[in-house]
Amino acid sequence: MKKSLILSPLACVCAFMVHGTSLANANNSTLENTKSPFSIAIHGGAGTIEKKNFSAEQEKNYRLKLKEAIDVGYEVLQNKGTSIDAVIAAVQVLEASPYFNAGVGAVYTYEGSHELDASIMDGNTLNAGAVSGVKTVKSPIALANAVKDHSVHVMLSGEGAEVFAKQQNLELVSNDYFDTKHRYQQLLKAKAKLEKQQKELKDFQAAHQTLDNKYKYGTVGAVALDQHGNLAAATSTGGMTVKRFGRVGDAPIIGAGTYANNASCAVSATGHGEYFIRYHVAADICARMEYQNISLEQASNKVVNDVLVEAGGSGGVIAVDAKGNIAMPFNSKGMYRASRKSGESAQVAIFKEEK
Amino acid sequence: MKKSLILSPLACVCAFMVHGTSLANANNSTLENTKSPFSIAIHGGAGTIEKKNFSAEQEKNYRLKLKEAIDVGYEVLQNKGTSIDAVIAAVQVLEASPYFNAGVGAVYTYEGSHELDASIMDGNTLNAGAVSGVKTVKSPIALANAVKDHSVHVMLSGEGAEVFAKQQNLELVSNDYFDTKHRYQQLLKAKAKLEKQQKELKDFQAAHQTLDNKYKYGTVGAVALDQHGNLAAATSTGGMTVKRFGRVGDAPIIGAGTYANNASCAVSATGHGEYFIRYHVAADICARMEYQNISLEQASNKVVNDVLVEAGGSGGVIAVDAKGNIAMPFNSKGMYRASRKSGESAQVAIFKEEK
Repeated sequence: MKKSLILSPLACVCAFMVHGTSLANANNSTLENTKSPFSIAIHGGAGTIEKKNFSAEQEKNYRLKLKEAIDVGYEVLQNKGTSIDAVIAAVQVLEASPYFNAGVGAVYTYEGSHELDASIMDGNTLNAGAVSGVKTVKSPIALANAVKDHSVHVMLSGEGAEVFAKQQNLELVSNDYFDTKHRYQQLLKAKAKLEKQQKELKDFQAAHQTLDNKYKYGTVGAVALDQHGNLAAATSTGGMTVKRFGRVGDAPIIGAGTYANNASCAVSATGHGEYFIRYHVAADICARMEYQNISLEQASNKVVNDVLVEAGGSGGVIAVDAKGNIAMPFNSKGMYRASRKSGESAQVAIFKEEK
Repeated sequence: MKKSLILSPLACVCAFMVHGTSLANANNSTLENTKSPFSIAIHGGAGTIEKKNFSAEQEKNYRLKLKEAIDVGYEVLQNKGTSIDAVIAAVQVLEASPYFNAGVGAVYTYEGSHELDASIMDGNTLNAGAVSGVKTVKSPIALANAVKDHSVHVMLSGEGAEVFAKQQNLELVSNDYFDTKHRYQQLLKAKAKLEKQQKELKDFQAAHQTLDNKYKYGTVGAVALDQHGNLAAATSTGGMTVKRFGRVGDAPIIGAGTYANNASCAVSATGHGEYFIRYHVAADICARMEYQNISLEQASNKVVNDVLVEAGGSGGVIAVDAKGNIAMPFNSKGMYRASRKSGESAQVAIFKEEK
């Protein structure tokens, strides 16, 4: 496979850049961007997210973190960085935050640990990298990117992926680095409910289906168009609370949770992953745009609000096309999201009623 | 997710049926099939397969095994069985044969063991099941099918998948059950070459790229249309010789190696998996058929002989549509393949020059 074996200096900076980045100033970019539009959108997961369940303080904290992530990614694009570097930078802010189900704050597996998945795709070359079930890599999205750039494979899993991470000198941490009290409480609640149901239903699988959707969600992701006209998409997640049996969701599946192709669009998905795999959601949005000659908004709405709703698959996507248009449809009660187009200010939203 | 929790009696029979099935008699089915056409196609891998490298005896053995597999699947369809049962039955013949890279005869990993991947999809319900990195499950395609029918997840991996297999009472074997002498010789040769190159190039990844394509191929698969009008696809593989780092290829990726949708077609792919993931080959053929309103032959040829050739991705697919049309394009020197339509005799082929 043709692959660049050398990361750009900016990529190296971004791969380890999490905090401390100054916020971009939208006004600086207005002039230059009329020539080369650029855009970025991020999500922090979709689900049963309703205003009544947030304190003012909580809501403020989520919005601030989303704003920080979108601005970090925007700044990369504004400085003529690549869309790949921008989506990595934005996702790493969300991975480092305890609010979202990726990196720190990842949900717990049935056994009480964390197994992280991530994937990334370059819309220019269609190079892609994905990892599943990693337990000790601080930034799963950085590992997915290293797979894209430095491995002959597209997807690595489990301990093998961690051996590769070590060889690539990525930062390793112990699994409890990802621990948070609120996710542990979630595990205990989910497990108690699951075990009660299991006693009644005598079947783990049937019991699992009675679990509230809030335990089945949570992903972070970013999509971007850079000034060079290239698209990229990235997704990172801790997967599903109380997941078992080495379950792999849609986040590390190229075509399901993540897809990017300059010929159409870049998509990162979040929701009930099993549906997103079966309907290969990310690639399907790109395919509909390219083959049916419809807009990004039409294609993403069709898949999220018709196809997935009909199937019973709850969730949403963020998507950007080669002109910088952004679409962020979701069929759940809310989706943590933010977007910013060149020369415009950032839009941050959480609930359904927001634009 | 809506799933049938009860396997049909026929599915149970097929899940453990490997040998001893009588060959179907094409003439018996001619009359009834004019009403409800059915079709099946299988592959045993694509690659640098040339007549000059086969003894007459070897070629005969391959053809006999392909004929056995296609006839076993055909018989299921002829008896009004489901396309799912037919593709499982055909794939299990190939998994049990030492000639193909799946089940017995699977290639060796870098560490000298076998890690098997498989996936299956029902074109009627879009239910799907996939497993990656399993070491002790006798029939990986039976496990993928159990995931489809009895798990709340679509994809399970590694040891977790094996725990699930045990719970499902699937037959377990020790990893050396899959051993064959010729694959071990292949491993030694590939490893020697790899280590020599690694010393020169000082880089495993660059060295891996110098490996001959014959080490990167090998998969088995089946696609079918049954008399009820339903499509199915299944793929099973040992992956890539000397694979490392928990590499996951396209075979267990729904949308890449396997896809089925009654609205378009069923596809099983074989080739250099990394390309098949990035170009989400199986789902893309279905998407082109559905969205561009082109034939199965046009869609599969476009992807295999234009898109993949341009990208440098070697391999092929087998595909069947809802009318029973079959397409089996490949861009490599050969592909082990067979097909049979209702009321017609079986076609078995290996080399490029064969029809």
